[in-house]
Amino acid sequence: MSITDQELDLLRTKAIDAKDFAYCPYSNFRVGACFLSTDGTYYSGANVENACYPVGTCAERCALAGAVASCKRPQIPKFKALAVATDISPPASPCGMCRQFINEFCGSTLPIYMYDKDNQYVMKTLGDLLPMSFGPQDLLPPR
Amino acid sequence: MSITDQELDLLRTKAIDAKDFAYCPYSNFRVGACFLSTDGTYYSGANVENACYPVGTCAERCALAGAVASCKRPQIPKFKALAVATDISPPASPCGMCRQFINEFCGSTLPIYMYDKDNQYVMKTLGDLLPMSFGPQDLLPPR
Amino acid sequence: MSITDQELDLLRTKAIDAKDFAYCPYSNFRVGACFLSTDGTYYSGANVENACYPVGTCAERCALAGAVASCKRPQIPKFKALAVATDISPPASPCGMCRQFINEFCGSTLPIYMYDKDNQYVMKTLGDLLPMSFGPQDLLPPR
Amino acid sequence: MSITDQELDLLRTKAIDAKDFAYCPYSNFRVGACFLSTDGTYYSGANVENACYPVGTCAERCALAGAVASCKRPQIPKFKALAVATDISPPASPCGMCRQFINEFCGSTLPIYMYDKDNQYVMKTLGDLLPMSFGPQDLLPPR
Ligand SMILES: [Zn+2]
Ligand SMILES: [Zn+2]
Ligand SMILES: [Zn+2]
Ligand SMILES: [Zn+2]
Repeated sequence: MSITDQELDLLRTKAIDAKDFAYCPYSNFRVGACFLSTDGTYYSGANVENACYPVGTCAERCALAGAVASCKRPQIPKFKALAVATDISPPASPCGMCRQFINEFCGSTLPIYMYDKDNQYVMKTLGDLLPMSFGPQDLLPPR
Repeated sequence: MSITDQELDLLRTKAIDAKDFAYCPYSNFRVGACFLSTDGTYYSGANVENACYPVGTCAERCALAGAVASCKRPQIPKFKALAVATDISPPASPCGMCRQFINEFCGSTLPIYMYDKDNQYVMKTLGDLLPMSFGPQDLLPPR
Repeated sequence: MSITDQELDLLRTKAIDAKDFAYCPYSNFRVGACFLSTDGTYYSGANVENACYPVGTCAERCALAGAVASCKRPQIPKFKALAVATDISPPASPCGMCRQFINEFCGSTLPIYMYDKDNQYVMKTLGDLLPMSFGPQDLLPPR
Repeated sequence: MSITDQELDLLRTKAIDAKDFAYCPYSNFRVGACFLSTDGTYYSGANVENACYPVGTCAERCALAGAVASCKRPQIPKFKALAVATDISPPASPCGMCRQFINEFCGSTLPIYMYDKDNQYVMKTLGDLLPMSFGPQDLLPPR
């Protein structure tokens, strides 16, 4: 299910706008993210840091946790695309922890649009960024 | 700034309802959480697990990251109360990681209402649950 | 099982020495930690940061993961004391995430010695620092 | 700097043996890991879980944090290879969070040997598993 030009325009705008909502007094590294679900909803997020660095969260996980927790079980949301925006060039890619978090809910064909400081993007799929992933299929069946 | 009976009713309902939005196929341990900000907004969240267990997030951090990332910088949101709901009795308390995450944004007097499987609560403040906390004041001034 | 003066001397020295092994280019906040097991072994650790801040680990978890992973199952190690050393005064306390990690293996009476920049300590027990903890007893029996 | 057959034999044995040191009552998914440094030292680790799932650590990070915290600053250890062992087939790969943690200290050519339940391996480099990584070079210079 591919993303339209109009959807990508809006997804880009929302990811870039989300940088203004980052709480990052320790790194000063603002990240905005936005997921588009297959039912047409946009879920934004930003990085939220902590004085104890490992306790903070990235923008991608902030957005996706919010999206998943907006969907009543047993349904699981599906996503068409992710956009991530930072203030550097070339654009930052999602960290490995976020790639892993995304992998729980998105297939390897999910397009990830990474926007640089000039709002230009590089696109890679989740499969490109997390090949040979560890995922639910590797576990024994959950209880 | 204290919470009214009406606000607490709504906060409880939202935290309990949020359990239905938990993604927890590995633990089968549903958690719902809701923060009430001082401007009267409610921010719900649920736990979102991952096949690689350390990569998942708790309900409290899901809700609070969403709340913080809904507020444009340089403003920082303020909160009046947190409710957490689980399916056990006595009620579960927030894990230490969540207490730490909350500590970045909430004072020691924040009331935390913990609801058990019968929707009865125990209330403790953040200061009760994370005494002698490590926080922003312990770091050298950020850049 | 209480710690002797001689053991505490060595535990202090090891925690303070461990600060020199911290990898903390992002925070410049060195932390050293050392656990003493009931069989008399000392396990040191230091904080190990990551460019993606949430991915790093604290000194206390570094030390304790190493200690637990040095003990063959089904045995579970037991601990007599923890010392943590930082370069500030008053001394830093373990973050909430570490308190939670420690809670899995140590009882509420575990003494935690926190050393400041002048090698003076404040002692609190785990129960003091993580009251009303969430722990294994709160979960359904694991598979 | 390539690994010899003899070194790989020992690395495999140590990773497989480390599975017996896993603390994983919640997942029952044992993981052992071992890093070989360029100076010939082997650093083993195992997964150490927590009742609050996100607070636990994986085997790879347990081993590598221990290795890094065994090296006095300003030196940074260098590594020749990593082996990871699990009880499934095909073998599990490191999760994204661990790939990110490893990326801080190892180059893209690091060989990662993944052993399955029958002690057969698949080898991929870090660059294979974490292409287009986010790393220290993406941050503003640390303070
Ligand atoms: Zn991330
Ligand atoms: Zn938590
Ligand atoms: Zn910590
Ligand atoms: Zn991992």
